[in-house]
Amino acid sequence: MPYVGVLGGMGSAATADFLTKLVALTPAQCDQEHLPVIAAFLPQIPDRSSAILGTGSDPLPRLLAGIDLLNQVGAGVIAIPCNTTHHWYRELAQASRAPILHIADAALARVPQDRPVMLLATRGTLVSGFYQRALALRATECVLPSPEQQQLVDKCIALVKAGEARSAAKLMAGLLENVRKRGVRALLLACTELPFAATGLACDDLLMIDCSLELARVTVDYALRLGWNRS
Amino acid sequence: MPYVGVLGGMGSAATADFLTKLVALTPAQCDQEHLPVIAAFLPQIPDRSSAILGTGSDPLPRLLAGIDLLNQVGAGVIAIPCNTTHHWYRELAQASRAPILHIADAALARVPQDRPVMLLATRGTLVSGFYQRALALRATECVLPSPEQQQLVDKCIALVKAGEARSAAKLMAGLLENVRKRGVRALLLACTELPFAATGLACDDLLMIDCSLELARVTVDYALRLGWNRS
Repeated sequence: MPYVGVLGGMGSAATADFLTKLVALTPAQCDQEHLPVIAAFLPQIPDRSSAILGTGSDPLPRLLAGIDLLNQVGAGVIAIPCNTTHHWYRELAQASRAPILHIADAALARVPQDRPVMLLATRGTLVSGFYQRALALRATECVLPSPEQQQLVDKCIALVKAGEARSAAKLMAGLLENVRKRGVRALLLACTELPFAATGLACDDLLMIDCSLELARVTVDYALRLGWNRS
Repeated sequence: MPYVGVLGGMGSAATADFLTKLVALTPAQCDQEHLPVIAAFLPQIPDRSSAILGTGSDPLPRLLAGIDLLNQVGAGVIAIPCNTTHHWYRELAQASRAPILHIADAALARVPQDRPVMLLATRGTLVSGFYQRALALRATECVLPSPEQQQLVDKCIALVKAGEARSAAKLMAGLLENVRKRGVRALLLACTELPFAATGLACDDLLMIDCSLELARVTVDYALRLGWNRS
């Protein structure tokens, strides 16, 4: 039976969080009803955002090596719980026998079309533009953070990567206040570190789309449809 | 650089929890300082406890296949976040090029020698007896649950495997009351599902040793000593 392949470590906490979501979303009464998964945490892959911004080395060779490893061990589908990495989606998908689920496709299925949505992501993801293009195709207005807001987003992400989710949550609370003032009520948490920063914050008035959760949802659906949880 | 290999899926939630602990225990300021990990969730491995009790099929062939897979992809050390599986520790260690860290060794390093400790585990782990033997070697008194208490332990484990950690926590609260009445103040949570059941319970008066956390600790120490978080 094929495995669910997970190309992770970008970052490591986000990958563990993605796996926790994947397991929680799987309807199972005992161990044997869960899905077989091979998760590769490859944190030494160079920083994706820096590479897109032209200030860091190219992560593509190591990303391709990770995809190759997952195919070799028998992955039947691959999920990558890192939004920025999807800048190289085409190259990775072309090199992979197993289909690679796209995190933006998973997330956009949850975005309402009738109101503006703010895109919270790394600078690399913003420059890459794949979320903006996908939103434009759906005629959904994409609101980008102001330069000051983007600095807060960057700090939130860095704090989570450094294991300081509580400090990140304080910054996120301020960020959400700002978002409310701009009249925005829907957010795409389009970086897999951001859900940590939003955990426990009061935001019933905001629709927050957790891209990591949505990727986990489509991954579980894919594997269950093919019956990979039957031994 | 070698990977930390994780033989998991026994159960899946426990493995995701172990990975979360592994990441949280790693001192890292950015992605690249984290450890490379390959985690194989193989939940279709037959139930270990049933096999030891003589009521289920032999998990050893699939356990060996998992160890083989981790060695093939380049694991430099292997952790198995399932106590019961350590019944087959010798066979697995003999078949593995990479050393396999023993969860009981990791946990026992935290057990105080001067007071009795209660062993909460699957019936398979209790019948296997490796915890009792290790405690006897340290001259630490091992207290076993009463038949009624063991039924509660079994139910806690089954509920966590079925994704119902909250219901498990209610049972665990009752179990801890019982433990206190017997005058025991130290517990070995020697099943990787049990920490979920104990989460959030008031138990400052009890020393609870989380075997999964201790295995994560020795795994991180091992890999950091060898510098596996340097790219």
